[in-house]
Amino acid sequence: MLGKRNALVGQSGGPTAVINGSLYGVIKAVAESKEIDNILGAIHGIEGVLNEQFLDFSKEAQHKIEGLKYTPGAALGGCRYKLDYDHKENINKLFETFDRYNIGYFFYIGGNDSMDTAHKVHELAQGIGYDLKVIGIPKTIDNDLVLTHHCPGFGSCAKYVATSVREAGMHTASMYTSEPITVLETVGRNTGWLPAASALARRDETEAPHLLCLPEVPFDESKFLVDVENTYQRVGGVFIVVGEGLMDTNGNYVNVQLDTVAKDAFGHPLLGGSSQFLKNCIEKNLKIKTRYIKLDICQQSAMHFASQTDLEEAVRAGKAAVEAACKGKSGYMVSFTDYDEEGAMQTGLVNLQDVANEERKVPLSWLNKEKNYITEKLISYARPLIQGEVKVPMQNGLPDYVSFGK
Amino acid sequence: MLGKRNALVGQSGGPTAVINGSLYGVIKAVAESKEIDNILGAIHGIEGVLNEQFLDFSKEAQHKIEGLKYTPGAALGGCRYKLDYDHKENINKLFETFDRYNIGYFFYIGGNDSMDTAHKVHELAQGIGYDLKVIGIPKTIDNDLVLTHHCPGFGSCAKYVATSVREAGMHTASMYTSEPITVLETVGRNTGWLPAASALARRDETEAPHLLCLPEVPFDESKFLVDVENTYQRVGGVFIVVGEGLMDTNGNYVNVQLDTVAKDAFGHPLLGGSSQFLKNCIEKNLKIKTRYIKLDICQQSAMHFASQTDLEEAVRAGKAAVEAACKGKSGYMVSFTDYDEEGAMQTGLVNLQDVANEERKVPLSWLNKEKNYITEKLISYARPLIQGEVKVPMQNGLPDYVSFGK
Repeated sequence: MLGKRNALVGQSGGPTAVINGSLYGVIKAVAESKEIDNILGAIHGIEGVLNEQFLDFSKEAQHKIEGLKYTPGAALGGCRYKLDYDHKENINKLFETFDRYNIGYFFYIGGNDSMDTAHKVHELAQGIGYDLKVIGIPKTIDNDLVLTHHCPGFGSCAKYVATSVREAGMHTASMYTSEPITVLETVGRNTGWLPAASALARRDETEAPHLLCLPEVPFDESKFLVDVENTYQRVGGVFIVVGEGLMDTNGNYVNVQLDTVAKDAFGHPLLGGSSQFLKNCIEKNLKIKTRYIKLDICQQSAMHFASQTDLEEAVRAGKAAVEAACKGKSGYMVSFTDYDEEGAMQTGLVNLQDVANEERKVPLSWLNKEKNYITEKLISYARPLIQGEVKVPMQNGLPDYVSFGK
Repeated sequence: MLGKRNALVGQSGGPTAVINGSLYGVIKAVAESKEIDNILGAIHGIEGVLNEQFLDFSKEAQHKIEGLKYTPGAALGGCRYKLDYDHKENINKLFETFDRYNIGYFFYIGGNDSMDTAHKVHELAQGIGYDLKVIGIPKTIDNDLVLTHHCPGFGSCAKYVATSVREAGMHTASMYTSEPITVLETVGRNTGWLPAASALARRDETEAPHLLCLPEVPFDESKFLVDVENTYQRVGGVFIVVGEGLMDTNGNYVNVQLDTVAKDAFGHPLLGGSSQFLKNCIEKNLKIKTRYIKLDICQQSAMHFASQTDLEEAVRAGKAAVEAACKGKSGYMVSFTDYDEEGAMQTGLVNLQDVANEERKVPLSWLNKEKNYITEKLISYARPLIQGEVKVPMQNGLPDYVSFGK
């Protein structure tokens, strides 16, 4: 067994309900592998490597490892650190640390920014001749990664959002005579997969949601107000779901916040308040009382009603990454390809560089002619992803989640 | 059986997750009563009586009646209609309608405004010598009704809020290095029972929530910023829960919306945005990135994770109302008195006039010395109310709620 090397796993970007499911998959597959010795977790992703902060899973209790399957947040801590190719000191530090801990395998669970980081690590390793197998594991509630059928994390978020829309929609419908309009805002910077998937809630045309505002469709105030007015006349009230990154016809976010800390480390504007923007727009123009809901990170962390299908796929993606690395692959992200004959989603591998920093938008052909709702294509796509509920252990009336580092 | 009269039941104010549980209790108890003939539902509360819009439960399928136990929104429709004593035409119409439908029993499920309406109907009936038994059934997520141990609806909301705080708190904790502060806003106009109950989420002092801003405690910006800074230094991040009706030291809401439709029919300002107010306050002064969450009516409608204890009590309150009316009582609200020796909450009756328009605040003695957190007293009070989970039937990955009138 001479020469067996260790693996390092990190979580990056914002957590999803099932991001720890992928971590669980990695840990399990490493334990079962013949090729890999021990596995360490990097605390706060690539930041943990630079700061030499690791979690040794072999020292954690087994029930905690099992608990990863139903624990929200990123157990290892997420990060929004942008790795700078040209920052020689950091790059040297990175590989010195890899070398000191005998790291031969690097698994990075994250979204498109994180796949960029993984890709850089892969290229740098190749450049200096350091033997490292780098595999990315997709993670995002936004569902905006390219070259994969969908992303782990999206199904659970879509299930929670659609459930919330059905519930808040029934609440709103029962109050049409006094509070007839509600706007619910989902996360998702430039893509509308979540507002689109909220349509899963609707069983007939009277039910919520009635109108969808996707980042893919430039916001046209006059048309929007006509749509709201028409729905109000037809149904008696209106339930609107809007993505946080709604843009005007000039490509500017309708609600960019111009405060002092308005951009994250990747330079993205920190959005918020597209629901409030629409509320104000409706109240000002139509003089109808409008509520708004901003679920924000509750969407990424709602493990109490997560999709069992999503969790299973997240675990599988983690395992597939380890299997690929053990076969000598590097520079790839695990992808979902398509359903097999038994209806199980199959995994594949795609080049990290083809995924990094790219965004997959909702196809405009999946929207109706008015571009204010989705068609059956999106429903058929999203429905399988929200099936089943993760069972969480309860204590004292609340979910009993595990936490590491305590 | 000559002379048996009918009952009318209405739902008023905003719905709670278990408001239909009380409706179910009323329907069941009427069916079992010897005194009452049929039961009608008033569509949109007292508005339905004035507009003669009723639902005849005897014509509804049994599975729909059973479905009331796990259906969010107000099945009959809620309302925010303020009954005007001096509006003779409406008052005449009210009693003409009661008489035409042979209504001898009137059950009104609602909060303090609705208990005011019930009280007026009771007094008006007495004034004109119309034989009517009026019993109010408490309902509010705010838990602000006086003379009752607690209110049906609060437990489910507290369970959902505490679960959301635990989940979003774990999410935030895993992102302390990049997005260290979150503010979550609960409903509750002038009372802080919900932000207070969110403390159920905390298992040790590092966990969310760290700071609570209750409407009972005047907001002091300097002290608040010191509290945030101290927690940030101690924990590495901060999770704050704030009530929507946060007030400054002059008794003004910190975030009153000055738009054109800023007050509801009862003259209450329509609040929103205390979380956004705190976010701006922190970012401006401490230059630390802060998220905010506004769950809004998702709190009132989260049947997918409602408290089984709360549901059972809501049903029991409905039944107790019918039993009291059948014993000839009128002008009362069902109350919860205390736990019996087996730990079951007992019901009683209190005068509607003593409840109407009154508000019960969180006792300041249940807060810590700093008034920025609650003590064990509140935990012991709230914990029993969130026990157990209502099982909702699922279809296609989403809760399968029934709806009436379709």
